[in-house]
Amino acid sequence: MVDSDIISELDFLFHPKSIAVIGASRSFAKTGSMTLFSTIAGGFTGKIFPINPKESKIMGLDAYPNLSSISDDLDLAMICVPSSKVPGVIEECVDCGVKVSVIISSGFGEIGEDGKEKESEIVEIARRGKMRLVGPNCMGVGSADPSLYSSMNFTIPMPGNVSIVSQSGTITTLSALESSDKGVGISKYISSGNEADLHIEDFITYFADDPETKLILAFIEGLRDGRRFFEVAKEVTKKKPLIVLKGGKTKEGAGAASSHTGSLAGSYALFDAMSRQAGISHVSSLKEMTDLSKAFSLLSLPKGRKVAIVSAQGGLGVLMADACVKSGLELPDLSNETIEALNQFLPYFWSHRNPIDLTAGINDFGALSKTLEVVLKQPDIQSVICLAPSFSPMFSRVLPRMSGGMQKMFKSTGIGMMERMEKHFVSDFIKLKDKYQKPVIAIGLFSQSESESAKMLEDGGIPIYETPEQIASVISNLSTYREYLEA
Amino acid sequence: MVDSDIISELDFLFHPKSIAVIGASRSFAKTGSMTLFSTIAGGFTGKIFPINPKESKIMGLDAYPNLSSISDDLDLAMICVPSSKVPGVIEECVDCGVKVSVIISSGFGEIGEDGKEKESEIVEIARRGKMRLVGPNCMGVGSADPSLYSSMNFTIPMPGNVSIVSQSGTITTLSALESSDKGVGISKYISSGNEADLHIEDFITYFADDPETKLILAFIEGLRDGRRFFEVAKEVTKKKPLIVLKGGKTKEGAGAASSHTGSLAGSYALFDAMSRQAGISHVSSLKEMTDLSKAFSLLSLPKGRKVAIVSAQGGLGVLMADACVKSGLELPDLSNETIEALNQFLPYFWSHRNPIDLTAGINDFGALSKTLEVVLKQPDIQSVICLAPSFSPMFSRVLPRMSGGMQKMFKSTGIGMMERMEKHFVSDFIKLKDKYQKPVIAIGLFSQSESESAKMLEDGGIPIYETPEQIASVISNLSTYREYLEA
Repeated sequence: MVDSDIISELDFLFHPKSIAVIGASRSFAKTGSMTLFSTIAGGFTGKIFPINPKESKIMGLDAYPNLSSISDDLDLAMICVPSSKVPGVIEECVDCGVKVSVIISSGFGEIGEDGKEKESEIVEIARRGKMRLVGPNCMGVGSADPSLYSSMNFTIPMPGNVSIVSQSGTITTLSALESSDKGVGISKYISSGNEADLHIEDFITYFADDPETKLILAFIEGLRDGRRFFEVAKEVTKKKPLIVLKGGKTKEGAGAASSHTGSLAGSYALFDAMSRQAGISHVSSLKEMTDLSKAFSLLSLPKGRKVAIVSAQGGLGVLMADACVKSGLELPDLSNETIEALNQFLPYFWSHRNPIDLTAGINDFGALSKTLEVVLKQPDIQSVICLAPSFSPMFSRVLPRMSGGMQKMFKSTGIGMMERMEKHFVSDFIKLKDKYQKPVIAIGLFSQSESESAKMLEDGGIPIYETPEQIASVISNLSTYREYLEA
Repeated sequence: MVDSDIISELDFLFHPKSIAVIGASRSFAKTGSMTLFSTIAGGFTGKIFPINPKESKIMGLDAYPNLSSISDDLDLAMICVPSSKVPGVIEECVDCGVKVSVIISSGFGEIGEDGKEKESEIVEIARRGKMRLVGPNCMGVGSADPSLYSSMNFTIPMPGNVSIVSQSGTITTLSALESSDKGVGISKYISSGNEADLHIEDFITYFADDPETKLILAFIEGLRDGRRFFEVAKEVTKKKPLIVLKGGKTKEGAGAASSHTGSLAGSYALFDAMSRQAGISHVSSLKEMTDLSKAFSLLSLPKGRKVAIVSAQGGLGVLMADACVKSGLELPDLSNETIEALNQFLPYFWSHRNPIDLTAGINDFGALSKTLEVVLKQPDIQSVICLAPSFSPMFSRVLPRMSGGMQKMFKSTGIGMMERMEKHFVSDFIKLKDKYQKPVIAIGLFSQSESESAKMLEDGGIPIYETPEQIASVISNLSTYREYLEA
């Protein structure tokens, strides 16, 4: 199901050689100026043409009074003028052979019937001229390959393999920047806004066929063509994961969606059921979306739902076990071989069951990696959740408040030694994960954002999360996707 | 219902004048040494006596071969010797008039029947000598006033007004350090472990009467005396909020709890129903516990469940509305007066409903505070959720990757100006919250941990959260507590 038209058309959106920004000015408070600035700052490798009848230079670039005064071919136009002027500008774009226009301007379908008529009008002009439209009422486009970040929201993420389509500009920005901040880079993003012409499913179709995209994220307020969306989704999910977050779950949220991007939110229960059938990973919050995106990027799919939990922290093991079972995961019993092997080096009061609580009484911290290896060997354990061997974030909270002498003494304590050895543990963990080829997910005792060993762990393919609920949810979602692929 | 015995007894635990650490040694890998180190590093204002028959000095302090060689009165003993030696040590503590012993040692009720017998034995010795016991199998005690942080887990939080009791040592540490890291300081913490003598309800009784404690957090794996717990809770919640997290919700979690602290987890559904009746704020994750603790610390209780959402971000407004309704909050319609007042300064395409979407088209960013004031004036709006006027975390993710020239130019853009003005917005927001005396909660577009203006906002009594779900949950929980107090 490759729609070759849409792919060649959208190539002009994601890989343009030239871009015009219509409505850029020297007043920096305008969306047009912001969009131009973002395009320049993002380092676009093609040509940039600011359009403004009153200026000759804007942000150091030559400005043009109109499109017809540009002699180059124009692939992409960003339209940032008041809504009343948009139809005229669209006419001009068509006349000058622009391939795709992104209409940032608001004041269309989202404000009611008048606006909807204006939308029909611009679509008609575009169709006549064989130009495609993104928006109106959207925030822009990003694409890592030509380093194109043309966005009124200043959204310049790190490059990577995740592509995003969102009916909300803010959600585009949040998911792109949050994701890249968490180490998962972005290949492309597009804010689809009111979707007068191009719909969310067109972008998903493009991403499905795009070799640079390994994973697709979509934020949906309402579908214009639900049947087509699920047909497209069903094909896409055979090739790569599609994570969807749906806004407008409640009457109030749906009302907000209608005045936001003029969409009809539809029945949430129906949407959820259809998503399941189409192999969509349907998440319930933006946070869950980012979490799952990291999991899909770093982990192989677990062979099934059977997990083991390895912790030196009893209370955390209890919460982790609760979260796993609530997410539909199973905790298999430890085999006699596993118990025997662990008895060899754990203190006699270790938990003797899954979750495996090494207990805080261990005085050989290498026991963490030894335990991980024993557990990975048990055949019916398909993924392992373990305490992250990254302790420094805890110390960074307490040590600065102590005297130099006490800080020095701390390094000699049992806990202080763990800090010194954590890089060693991290590399053991990564080697074991590679050797046994089962997903290993770590739980950090604190936010690990500042921790070097946490970064090592994730670079090595072991994602780290802050809460039991996050971990249980991602393993369950990965398992569901595998079950769908196998069915 | 003040149990004056328990209060005077526990004064020796939380306000001791002297402390013996039994089992401290020069080997820093031992829990005794860690406990001693933490007591010294925490800056305890009383006397510290390391006990070890083989050493004369440990960590710069005079060590004693046994308790009887100390001439001072001993209020508190930390016991960190192997379980087989604990009964003898308890005898010694009783003989020397120790008031409370905290037994860190593991290897008791959590390992089965043998261990349970050993527990009964030590309780009998202690009762004969009128000494109270904490633990065994716990991690220690913290108390801000005497700067007592005697913990094998190195748990030294910032001082404040939250007190914690937890059957898990790790959860004690996590909740204390996470909470203080988020700006909510700790008055006291206690890890109750196997609760051979003192139970969770004893500590809650003490905290209820403690003028330094404004808010109580409890982590429960299983109750030894459920009836008594809920009787105590019912009285406590009339005086101050009691937030409870329950581990062992599932069979698997309950199994883990039994090998962790030897507790019986009981029926979760029953626990939840009883909690409701007793006015307990029953949370479902550690994260929700920290979130709610911040909310109780910073916010006044909302007068009801009616909230308004103010955002310049449509997609976020949609998700926020969904989350509110799912948490049992209501979004009242905007009155004609409110709509009229907003029409005066918002662009014509603002949402005209609750959630109020200013739309990204605003070019006067003061519109955020003007909108907040209009909304706070509407009588039936009882709290307001607004976009945090703290934008710098977004820029800090993108700006460092740009050239110096582009960074400078950025400051002149519409978004760049917001960064410069954010402290101004923050102080407006705080003034408005104080003027209208309604809770205002902010949603940050990114993790705001590094942001100065986010800190200003929270210091001014406006908590900031990362996700719509967190905000909806805390407002709903605060409302539930108010409803309980009024009933």
